[in-house]
Amino acid sequence: MKVSDRIAGLTGGGPDGWDLYRKARRMIAEGVSVTELTIGEHDVRTDPSILEAMRASAAGGHTGYAALPGTDALRTAVAARIEARTGVPTSRRNVVITPGGQAALFAAHVVACDPGDRALFIDPYYATYPGTIRAAGAIAVTVAAEAERDFRPDPAAIEAALPARSILVNSPNNPTGVVYDRATLDGIGEVARAHDLWIVSDEVYDTQVWSGAHLSPRALPGLAERTLVVGSLSKSHAMTGSRLGWLAGPEEAIAHAINLTTHTTYGVPGFVQDAGLFALARGEALETAIAAPFRRRHALAMRVLSSAGVRVVPSTASMYVMADIRPTGLSGEAFADRLLDTHAIAVMPGESFGRAAAGHLRIALTVADDRLDAALTTLANFHNTLKRQAA
Amino acid sequence: MKVSDRIAGLTGGGPDGWDLYRKARRMIAEGVSVTELTIGEHDVRTDPSILEAMRASAAGGHTGYAALPGTDALRTAVAARIEARTGVPTSRRNVVITPGGQAALFAAHVVACDPGDRALFIDPYYATYPGTIRAAGAIAVTVAAEAERDFRPDPAAIEAALPARSILVNSPNNPTGVVYDRATLDGIGEVARAHDLWIVSDEVYDTQVWSGAHLSPRALPGLAERTLVVGSLSKSHAMTGSRLGWLAGPEEAIAHAINLTTHTTYGVPGFVQDAGLFALARGEALETAIAAPFRRRHALAMRVLSSAGVRVVPSTASMYVMADIRPTGLSGEAFADRLLDTHAIAVMPGESFGRAAAGHLRIALTVADDRLDAALTTLANFHNTLKRQAA
Repeated sequence: MKVSDRIAGLTGGGPDGWDLYRKARRMIAEGVSVTELTIGEHDVRTDPSILEAMRASAAGGHTGYAALPGTDALRTAVAARIEARTGVPTSRRNVVITPGGQAALFAAHVVACDPGDRALFIDPYYATYPGTIRAAGAIAVTVAAEAERDFRPDPAAIEAALPARSILVNSPNNPTGVVYDRATLDGIGEVARAHDLWIVSDEVYDTQVWSGAHLSPRALPGLAERTLVVGSLSKSHAMTGSRLGWLAGPEEAIAHAINLTTHTTYGVPGFVQDAGLFALARGEALETAIAAPFRRRHALAMRVLSSAGVRVVPSTASMYVMADIRPTGLSGEAFADRLLDTHAIAVMPGESFGRAAAGHLRIALTVADDRLDAALTTLANFHNTLKRQAA
Repeated sequence: MKVSDRIAGLTGGGPDGWDLYRKARRMIAEGVSVTELTIGEHDVRTDPSILEAMRASAAGGHTGYAALPGTDALRTAVAARIEARTGVPTSRRNVVITPGGQAALFAAHVVACDPGDRALFIDPYYATYPGTIRAAGAIAVTVAAEAERDFRPDPAAIEAALPARSILVNSPNNPTGVVYDRATLDGIGEVARAHDLWIVSDEVYDTQVWSGAHLSPRALPGLAERTLVVGSLSKSHAMTGSRLGWLAGPEEAIAHAINLTTHTTYGVPGFVQDAGLFALARGEALETAIAAPFRRRHALAMRVLSSAGVRVVPSTASMYVMADIRPTGLSGEAFADRLLDTHAIAVMPGESFGRAAAGHLRIALTVADDRLDAALTTLANFHNTLKRQAA
């Protein structure tokens, strides 16, 4: 029986770029000791105090249907957090709670786009972006952010990709770890205003900024009315598996997004929302503690790789670093595959995140410091050997 | 900033039919003691043993990203349950776990329909149906199931509503409590085969059948290949707030649905899935225990209303009964509003569920037996008084 054309084309066909990840998983399943630096999963579990808040909420009876837009308390807490970080007046009516950031990303594109509309996203990109846009019935259009610009998009390249209804930006960026500076965001904002685009701003890495500051496009003059912010407790509070996120934006757009979530997910477990509320109430101290290992390892990775002569994308954020392995003459895919075969170290090829990051590797900083140090040293030596052979 | 036409039109405009529900909530908030018989929320909470399983899973570390299609164990358990109930061979590859039945309902329509396709649903209907179809970008088309046919759809009426890509059926039915018999399902199946429709079968009330048996269209000859079954633990296990459901169907369609859920929700909390697995492992005994109060109250309601001379839709299932109040000359809305004002008893007008149930009331059996008995007696007396005045 034939499925819809939209769902048949959702992944865009062709390889999905995750062969290396699956190969590493197979090796681990077969008993190989692989140093796993592929995906953005914390090496700590959700804090026991948060789980205790969840248990208490469930035991206390918050197991029936929760308020569909999210509980008033959690929406208010998220709004307060956003306002504190951006200075933009934000109330609970600007926030809908979703089962994870991915659901907010999808909702944002349904808010912005009708079927057949063009929706822009920046390459390199998080793996689900194009499929999310296609799931919303829109046409996914890439805008390359070149390595030579440190992966910050050029407003001229955005303009060249028009017409469109929306542009999806992600700063702090996965996979590159780059934070968009004011000039970059101003450039994006100018195009958005001139051509009446929605800006979908994925800010799930906003607590993983190691120097300088994260700037939300919603905080820039005149952009709040056209910006939909995707947030989540996954990365900030090591709650990836709890599926708790939000979409924030103009009241009217959020009212529509609430209609959408009512008809696509029908709310989020009350006990998970109460756990999230507890987590937010613990304030910046907990966020800083959860971010601390990645801050430390980011510095470690930049130091180890750079001092060994590997070019690293000059990043200031996230639980990843990106290495430029083009001097070896290999693609990211070939390098990562040989590194896995030879040294049982698994990193993601840049090609997994689009064409712009070809010849790069994304290294997730998700193992203990000493093990990371050893793996990076091995990677750097491997790089230098291949580079000499290529010369 | 303009939102998409699709999301702006999601609710179809006009009143949503839930004024009565909101009025009752306001009265309760103001301190009025309202007998609340509006929504399908159990008057028991999720069983403590299930919550303990959830706690143990979370404490044991299942707090990271869970397998995106659902855990192998839960998919296998759901498949086994379906196979045991229907006799249709079912493996985990026929099942994707979703955050609640509503998400499965949405996924089913994205699998079946492209934007602009027509998707049929039966009136009277559960409140989210038309919006769910519109959220998927399809056109929601009603097929009236007349009171005179005890709310079972006439295949001729379905044929008259064609063309379409899908038909959504819900047996045991909310709001009517009617179970579709073999002849009704055969009729639907014949139209589906003749015109190559997907059947989306919402079976979330499958454990609330008080006499006779529930029959899934997926179990009928030649229909498994074109049927997508929506299931959930909400009603069967009093886990409404846990948001745990599934979509079951042909392997290829489910593979596509997994792509969709990856891009719209990115999985379901592992600890919630483990709680669901535990709940299913407790077998029919727990399901029967959770259903027992509704079985008892359904019989009570049929007896109290009938013996007082109120016509009741001859139903054999669900946590609702539907009363025909047309002899009073009032609409369901007017009757329910006056009942709430006069006696502080809140029931849903039939009009909240479409046009076919106009002049009816849906009564949720969600308070203790003695309180339900008293409320139904008051309702019947009110009905009879109004009926005499109308004569």
